Amino acid sequence: MLYSLVMAGGSGTRFWPMSRELFPKQFLSFEKEGSLLSRTIDRILPLIPEERIALVVGTAHASETRRILQSMNGGQGRHPRLIVEPRSLNTLPAIAVASLAVEKEDPDAVVSVMASDHLISPQDHFLALLQHAAQIAQTEKVLLTFGIPPHRPETGFGYLELGEALPAFSTGLFAAAKVARFVEKPDIETARRFVEGKNHHWNSGMFVFSVKVFFEELERFQPTLFASLQPLKEALGTSGERRELDHFYRTASSVSIDYGLMELSSRVWSLSGPIDWKDVGSWSALDDIAPKDSRGNVVRGNALVIDSDNTIVQADKRVIATIGLKDMIVVDTDDATLICAKDQAQKVREVVSRLRERNAVEALEHRTTHRPWGSYTILDQGPMYKIKSVTVNPQARLSLQMHLHRSEHWVVIAGTARVTLGEEEIFLHTNQSIDIPKSTRHRIENPGKVPLIVIEVQNGEYLEEDDIIRFQDDYRRMEEAPGLDSPPLRSKGS
Amino acid sequence: MLYSLVMAGGSGTRFWPMSRELFPKQFLSFEKEGSLLSRTIDRILPLIPEERIALVVGTAHASETRRILQSMNGGQGRHPRLIVEPRSLNTLPAIAVASLAVEKEDPDAVVSVMASDHLISPQDHFLALLQHAAQIAQTEKVLLTFGIPPHRPETGFGYLELGEALPAFSTGLFAAAKVARFVEKPDIETARRFVEGKNHHWNSGMFVFSVKVFFEELERFQPTLFASLQPLKEALGTSGERRELDHFYRTASSVSIDYGLMELSSRVWSLSGPIDWKDVGSWSALDDIAPKDSRGNVVRGNALVIDSDNTIVQADKRVIATIGLKDMIVVDTDDATLICAKDQAQKVREVVSRLRERNAVEALEHRTTHRPWGSYTILDQGPMYKIKSVTVNPQARLSLQMHLHRSEHWVVIAGTARVTLGEEEIFLHTNQSIDIPKSTRHRIENPGKVPLIVIEVQNGEYLEEDDIIRFQDDYRRMEEAPGLDSPPLRSKGS
Repeated sequence: MLYSLVMAGGSGTRFWPMSRELFPKQFLSFEKEGSLLSRTIDRILPLIPEERIALVVGTAHASETRRILQSMNGGQGRHPRLIVEPRSLNTLPAIAVASLAVEKEDPDAVVSVMASDHLISPQDHFLALLQHAAQIAQTEKVLLTFGIPPHRPETGFGYLELGEALPAFSTGLFAAAKVARFVEKPDIETARRFVEGKNHHWNSGMFVFSVKVFFEELERFQPTLFASLQPLKEALGTSGERRELDHFYRTASSVSIDYGLMELSSRVWSLSGPIDWKDVGSWSALDDIAPKDSRGNVVRGNALVIDSDNTIVQADKRVIATIGLKDMIVVDTDDATLICAKDQAQKVREVVSRLRERNAVEALEHRTTHRPWGSYTILDQGPMYKIKSVTVNPQARLSLQMHLHRSEHWVVIAGTARVTLGEEEIFLHTNQSIDIPKSTRHRIENPGKVPLIVIEVQNGEYLEEDDIIRFQDDYRRMEEAPGLDSPPLRSKGS
Repeated sequence: MLYSLVMAGGSGTRFWPMSRELFPKQFLSFEKEGSLLSRTIDRILPLIPEERIALVVGTAHASETRRILQSMNGGQGRHPRLIVEPRSLNTLPAIAVASLAVEKEDPDAVVSVMASDHLISPQDHFLALLQHAAQIAQTEKVLLTFGIPPHRPETGFGYLELGEALPAFSTGLFAAAKVARFVEKPDIETARRFVEGKNHHWNSGMFVFSVKVFFEELERFQPTLFASLQPLKEALGTSGERRELDHFYRTASSVSIDYGLMELSSRVWSLSGPIDWKDVGSWSALDDIAPKDSRGNVVRGNALVIDSDNTIVQADKRVIATIGLKDMIVVDTDDATLICAKDQAQKVREVVSRLRERNAVEALEHRTTHRPWGSYTILDQGPMYKIKSVTVNPQARLSLQMHLHRSEHWVVIAGTARVTLGEEEIFLHTNQSIDIPKSTRHRIENPGKVPLIVIEVQNGEYLEEDDIIRFQDDYRRMEEAPGLDSPPLRSKGS
């Protein structure tokens, strides 16, 4: 059986201010079709059903990932498995742990590893390529990687140097070859030679192998890592699983699958085919994927673009007016704006690291935060007060909770709320309000069919999110934790 | 006696988004010392007391102008007279009407006309220049203009071509000359010749003359305008004043004092002296007046400026990050951001006109609106609701009012409120709230010593500012109207 491991880590630096630490690139939608993450899953679903897909995520991104997965099919039906890592350790430990979980289910499984933030088309070619690779991986007991023939001298990718061609495993569409070696990101001259020489392909970072071959090669080239996996393997599905997972992540070293396995193994083949593959690496990559006006501008949202050329303007609600810009990137969000020369887009990381040094919240999260039950936006804050607009989805409710340091005042703007306050239960309609004193159990619920919008005015000496005592939570956030099959996605098919 | 007429019109286009139609350039503060308007008044006060200063403003700017005047001396003491024009007709009709009001008070008065949005220093030289000009105007019966010796080939100003020098009226500091002619904005070649030739000065747009001479020349060169002033002159101080003022503004033609009088008269002299004069004409002018970092950047507010040169970044609350910018202007406000090449700053007008075509509120006003009693900021709005943060100054109160289409809900965030609701009077403290039903008289007042901050949630099918019925208003906004001496500034010295 063919499985897929989707790597959904990501630090949210390169697409700041649209991406944030808590809202990395895979959550972004660059086109209308949905987030990069949901498009990655949609792309493979015809070949690999949800129950054979596992997403590897960090604890900080688990909840938003779940929300995206649920919204993909309206909260109904099947979801991919979620593997929540206790900490981030690069790709090899993550793939090893995920492969362990797959192996337990099907020791003969073939696994396809892919990133959650690439754009690939056309879908039918890609699925045929995947199927062909899975077959070779199974019969020939090799590790396959997808090589992309370069059409420009790109210095931002690693390359594969091709070895012996394998005509027996090639078809009209796909070409197979042994991989002679992996080449690190080249300088521009070398990259030009690679394009001309036609013997080097971009390393797409996608891999296909049987779990058997993967663990054989892992044992050979990373014996320490392999050995430290064994206690976890034995504990899988037992009460000790969580403890062993934590232990593994505390002790394993951080290494990529490229460096720790692929470059060392002599059983690596490459497969290439007529697919269009894009690693959306920075804001300037939007030039490749978005439609342009007659002067080469990519313009979205409430923008007024005057006498500007080859400029990307990503506006939101506010008016963004540009005059006389050339080769620039302008990205606006609620609380931060980036204005950047296109050829210096890689320096966006520097902005994020400087914001982190200042402990600026703009590096971490957006003003609007999504929750399993809906979302909230901070409208204003000052000493002793904070004002939020809170949207509760139909049939959803927040946890039963209490705050020690703040009182709250709710005004219903739209929809109907059922409010629990102490032992009481009260219905509130548009324009009605209620006071929630400090240290009082409360809960808000949307029992209706349309979104409930509430304005929340907080008053108190400490107004952070961590002043919360949860008594009951539909979304198990009281027990939010790393794990190999994190709730509520354990049960297959429901 | 020396009077001053300060022209405080202005359309608010060139400094968008910081300026707006309802918040033009003279209200802006480019340096710490206060708005251009208040600095203009402060500059002349040692020579000309408040009761001999008149500000000419449009109805749309009267209230904000009053607020600035009041804040200049903490709401106490004397204020300049406010002349509120029924509509804007360029400088000559405005100066004629204002001079009429001055003439009625003192037929021998000398008037100095100045813009409300220029920067001039040093103050003592300027006041000496003004005094010298006033003396010449009085004794020689001429119209004086201030010429500024050009230090760069500026194509954005008009020039004065100097005629016969007047050594008898020159001093060690000041040089007097007859004006041979007025020259329109030159091309760059001509401007270069003017700088080299030393016989042309910038026309600063400031004038000094006795009202007698002004009306003599007006009668001679603009007999129609002069004639149409006479009914207003007779009605001054009577109940017919307002009607005649309206009539004059409906019939008078729109013409500048330069074009309609100065260029035609042979009695125009020029005076120049060691003053630094700046007409802050567009965002790029900030280069002249603001301190720069080592790479030539002018940076203000919450900005992160990386690898950028000669760039003006005017941030506000939100994070503005710039990377690799050269010779750019970035101006951020709550609801709009401008990003503009420095050499195209004059095209900001085009942004404003395009916003006006769309009826976009961002051309008209800021999200924060100042009122005589304090201010309000729109935090959020949607169908059927609007949320405002309202700040009421100590000892101030809003009008006693009623809305037909909306109910309101107030939550006190800071300070203490006295609320009138129907026949009741209620005190509200921090974290207390009250509902104001539709069609109910209400008023909010700050009886305390610290600002009162209230969150107002409005609900209803129509949420515009004009759904208001005022029953009583401390600021006479029920009778807000054009006039030659608009309340509450009529009474001199109180």
